[in-house]
Amino acid sequence: MSQAVVCNGMVFLAGQVADDTSQDVGGQTRQVLAAIDRLLAEAGSDKSRLLAAQIFLADMADFAAMNKVWEAWVIPGQTPARATVQAAMAGRTTGSRSSSPPRPPEAGRLEHASGKPGGQRRADLGTA
Amino acid sequence: MSQAVVCNGMVFLAGQVADDTSQDVGGQTRQVLAAIDRLLAEAGSDKSRLLAAQIFLADMADFAAMNKVWEAWVIPGQTPARATVQAAMAGRTTGSRSSSPPRPPEAGRLEHASGKPGGQRRADLGTA
Amino acid sequence: MSQAVVCNGMVFLAGQVADDTSQDVGGQTRQVLAAIDRLLAEAGSDKSRLLAAQIFLADMADFAAMNKVWEAWVIPGQTPARATVQAAMAGRTTGSRSSSPPRPPEAGRLEHASGKPGGQRRADLGTA
Repeated sequence: MSQAVVCNGMVFLAGQVADDTSQDVGGQTRQVLAAIDRLLAEAGSDKSRLLAAQIFLADMADFAAMNKVWEAWVIPGQTPARATVQAAMAGRTTGSRSSSPPRPPEAGRLEHASGKPGGQRRADLGTA
Repeated sequence: MSQAVVCNGMVFLAGQVADDTSQDVGGQTRQVLAAIDRLLAEAGSDKSRLLAAQIFLADMADFAAMNKVWEAWVIPGQTPARATVQAAMAGRTTGSRSSSPPRPPEAGRLEHASGKPGGQRRADLGTA
Repeated sequence: MSQAVVCNGMVFLAGQVADDTSQDVGGQTRQVLAAIDRLLAEAGSDKSRLLAAQIFLADMADFAAMNKVWEAWVIPGQTPARATVQAAMAGRTTGSRSSSPPRPPEAGRLEHASGKPGGQRRADLGTA
């Protein structure tokens, strides 16, 4: 599948998961965000132009640890519209014949504009 | 995070949850839809121009009660493409150190056009 | 609700589920993809121009069987950015008063460009 698709000046990213799932939720979140940074750069964009993000967490108890890394990553005033959902996401090993469980999902799906930041308006109404 | 991001004449909304979770699923749905109405109005749009919606329900058994309020809210012939999924969504208190469980998720994520309704085509093939 | 909404040269599809849930996951996946083919055709597009897809599986153990049908359906080099999540999705019977459980969700939500394929760029970085 495609990791990134560009259309109408927007980039659609595939769901990203951590490669090294031996790391804790903070480390896995950092891996995912680094993958997103790479994909955005290849598409000629960056995290200052995020439109929307979905985060799937296997366990909502990991929210605070994930969110801490997220907050350090996003650019204040340039944050995407986000939804965080408790659900497992398919990892790179999903579907293999091994008996290992699906990798913990730490990733999200991001759609963002590759246009100029000035072309976007944001409404920051809360911090939740 | 941003509650709404505008790009290419489209508005991307963050996941919305009920503030008062002591209300039943109908009441919580009404709260969420009222929040969406407010965000759309601030972005210069309204519910007659919805493109797509995702609804996350903690328990699919609440579908009928949620859907009744949804159906009363949407404008016939102007309804968005919708997907309803059973999963918990992070609420405003998620990540706090309190031991309370995540709030029941009644909300969705909506992307909609801020363009003129005439610029959209819809195919109504069912009521599900 | 609308099964497809068109805006800005993009088509937003509602979540699709199998009609005949007596079939196995492969058969249900085929039903869903056939429904998507129909909706895309009605909107003047096709699967060669998919932008993004979300797949909700009731059980991630069905990933391989779903993915086999998916891989046979997509056009190499024209695949969408995909995220596969383990969660139940509302079916056509959800909300009815019958005591039957929600249908197994095999469907996804697709957003795709109805523009020319040449207007898209794709980055294929993996096969996961």
